[in-house]
Amino acid sequence: MESKRIRVAIAGYGNLGKGIESQLSKNQDMELVCIFTRRDAETLKTNSKVPIVKIEDIAHWKDKIDIVFLCGGSAKDLPIQGPQFASLFNTVCSFDTHAQALEYSKKMSEATSLGDTIAMTSIGWDPGLFSHIRLLIKSILPDVQIYTFWGKGISQGHSDAIRKINGVKDARQYTIPHETAIKKVSNGETPQFSKREMHKRECYVVVEDGADTGRIENEIKNMPNYFAEYDTVVNFISEKELLEKHSKLPHGGTVIGIGETSKGIKQVIKFSLNLDSNPEFTSAVLIAYGRATYRMWRNGERGYKNFSDVPIKYLSTMDYNDIIRNVL
Amino acid sequence: MESKRIRVAIAGYGNLGKGIESQLSKNQDMELVCIFTRRDAETLKTNSKVPIVKIEDIAHWKDKIDIVFLCGGSAKDLPIQGPQFASLFNTVCSFDTHAQALEYSKKMSEATSLGDTIAMTSIGWDPGLFSHIRLLIKSILPDVQIYTFWGKGISQGHSDAIRKINGVKDARQYTIPHETAIKKVSNGETPQFSKREMHKRECYVVVEDGADTGRIENEIKNMPNYFAEYDTVVNFISEKELLEKHSKLPHGGTVIGIGETSKGIKQVIKFSLNLDSNPEFTSAVLIAYGRATYRMWRNGERGYKNFSDVPIKYLSTMDYNDIIRNVL
Repeated sequence: MESKRIRVAIAGYGNLGKGIESQLSKNQDMELVCIFTRRDAETLKTNSKVPIVKIEDIAHWKDKIDIVFLCGGSAKDLPIQGPQFASLFNTVCSFDTHAQALEYSKKMSEATSLGDTIAMTSIGWDPGLFSHIRLLIKSILPDVQIYTFWGKGISQGHSDAIRKINGVKDARQYTIPHETAIKKVSNGETPQFSKREMHKRECYVVVEDGADTGRIENEIKNMPNYFAEYDTVVNFISEKELLEKHSKLPHGGTVIGIGETSKGIKQVIKFSLNLDSNPEFTSAVLIAYGRATYRMWRNGERGYKNFSDVPIKYLSTMDYNDIIRNVL
Repeated sequence: MESKRIRVAIAGYGNLGKGIESQLSKNQDMELVCIFTRRDAETLKTNSKVPIVKIEDIAHWKDKIDIVFLCGGSAKDLPIQGPQFASLFNTVCSFDTHAQALEYSKKMSEATSLGDTIAMTSIGWDPGLFSHIRLLIKSILPDVQIYTFWGKGISQGHSDAIRKINGVKDARQYTIPHETAIKKVSNGETPQFSKREMHKRECYVVVEDGADTGRIENEIKNMPNYFAEYDTVVNFISEKELLEKHSKLPHGGTVIGIGETSKGIKQVIKFSLNLDSNPEFTSAVLIAYGRATYRMWRNGERGYKNFSDVPIKYLSTMDYNDIIRNVL
């Protein structure tokens, strides 16, 4: 445990920001200093009593915060807010747009050189813990074949895609892995799966009065990239049922690596998560990496970082000798 | 990939030493320089053509080797050889006597200060990868309950214990986890298990002509610490059958962490290994940590280290930008 508490702030008060706020109670080495928001600070209701600060005023908080948890979305918020905050504060974010990760790393790197800070990026479970396990597997078994299965859980991106269809009021989409496929790989087989053979998709859709459900079902099932390559089931339900049965945010997934160390000698490594709440778990991961980021910064490290730069001991509040005694 | 290959040596040519030798072929950034042995160097037959060097002559090799993989046993070899090598070379070992890990860390730390080296210790899968996952889990979910199951696999310690019984010629002991217990925990239950409820033990024993199998079975089943607290099955078989059916060294295990992020919201993290060859896999892990050790040493780090000190990127031959592009 540090003698002085780590002063943290939250930027963005959605599911993830609320998750950080709730999980901080389990991490007594940190204290929440303020919450940054784009919204009207006067009307935002939060669970803690810290100041709510408009995003335009972040510069005034420069020396009052050790770590800012960036809780905006990867599509629109982080590409702008990321560099903005990183030029003033050490930051931790869950940037998850794989295709833009390298470009984002460069922008964040530039910003950190302005602020003399660390930007810890793409933290969470995928990217994040799953990336960590994939790299660990690949380092140990150079010829390994790695499979990633997601779910059962709600995909925000797929739910949003359905919501954009004309006549749709609200929707939830569950990504569901095929248990038979997971079993095959767990047993050491290394098949070439099609997308359809690894995952299926289950949709719960609320439509506007009088909407053509046949047309909507058709539009969902044939949506390229999102649904067309999968077996998709569409269920039309009432708004009441959606709220009652589908308002939680469970998720999870499995990473499996299969490699041979010599001819016919198979080694199977498997990592899986079964999460009742995706945002609460992701928050818990961000907090641990926030601790690590602060320690690395105090040790003189600067710049863009990701999971692969972090010695695990920095994530924990445990004393080093206790790690040797109790975890080894 | 490094421009210059990492020069490595093996100390001890048992199962683990042979494993390192075989796995180096998959790691082209390393080259085997020599093999150190306590045995008669003239008579030792190895698969590679490198010099076989008596352990008394290690000092002559001081500037010719970047990393020595210590492949002796934790009970008798490493407590002596560890400090001996660490005072001359960067070392990686799989020291696995939990109760003496802290004492060993101090001895290795002193030795490294003589040699200006790094001693990377307790590397493998347990301790090693399992320790890594346990600390990762504990860092993310502070109130977590962690379970470790081993097997199905051969326990060298338990097999040795049987071999010491009067009248026993040879033996193999399989540690087998109770699948029902693993399933319970995987489903988010957090029971207090007795030892008997987590694992059972299966023994294959070859006896000397005319030995009293009833007495031997009794001695095995009542051996404190090793067997008395477990349900143990003893099978007497011929030497031929032992060699045919039980000469491989499979192993594996499962670490499961269950924590709540808020009341009733369970998060389950699970990591498992299913290994056809324990020594080959352990060797593969040691090699990856050997690479990391050399890089950390080149970066100016010195002293005692374990898994928790290592940024994962150092384990891999992948370029940092490729990690961002392909693993994240």
